[in-house]
Amino acid sequence: MLVLVTYDVNTTYQSGQKRLRHIAEACENYGLRVQKSVFECRVDPAEWERLKAKLLDLYHAETDSLRFYFLGSNWKNRVEHHGVCDAPDIDGALIL
Amino acid sequence: MLVLVTYDVNTTYQSGQKRLRHIAEACENYGLRVQKSVFECRVDPAEWERLKAKLLDLYHAETDSLRFYFLGSNWKNRVEHHGVCDAPDIDGALIL
Repeated sequence: MLVLVTYDVNTTYQSGQKRLRHIAEACENYGLRVQKSVFECRVDPAEWERLKAKLLDLYHAETDSLRFYFLGSNWKNRVEHHGVCDAPDIDGALIL
Repeated sequence: MLVLVTYDVNTTYQSGQKRLRHIAEACENYGLRVQKSVFECRVDPAEWERLKAKLLDLYHAETDSLRFYFLGSNWKNRVEHHGVCDAPDIDGALIL
């Protein structure tokens, strides 16, 4: 299944920069960075539980925002991309 | 239907700041800002074509990135949020 992880981390303080880095690193272990704070994670349920637990451990609920979008297994038809894309395409997102 | 719009706009130059503002304004006409560069747009097909055309007109394909995720009509079960959320919830996203 594909889980889209998007986040905003408050980087007012140095600790925020560290959280931002660690959250990105956690996502990189499971998925593809498609924009600065947007990751497409192709995970099975057990992997997702591990990644989610890690992200909830890393982020600050009072200052940061984490959003998870569950795109299911038929996600290739749900994604459309335009413009630059740093990451190699995750074998199917429509690039126009 | 719900279309998730995520974007990265290159703001190295002043013109990028302007594009960023205009892209956000275009999305605000159709949806809810849930993170800095993430909008949830509840649109019908005709509205979506208008918003998409506007976004493709505004962005720079050589420097910016636009991603659209089509979450369908049953999107409420596809979204999970943790932490701060500036926007009023779009009547249903699960807030934990």
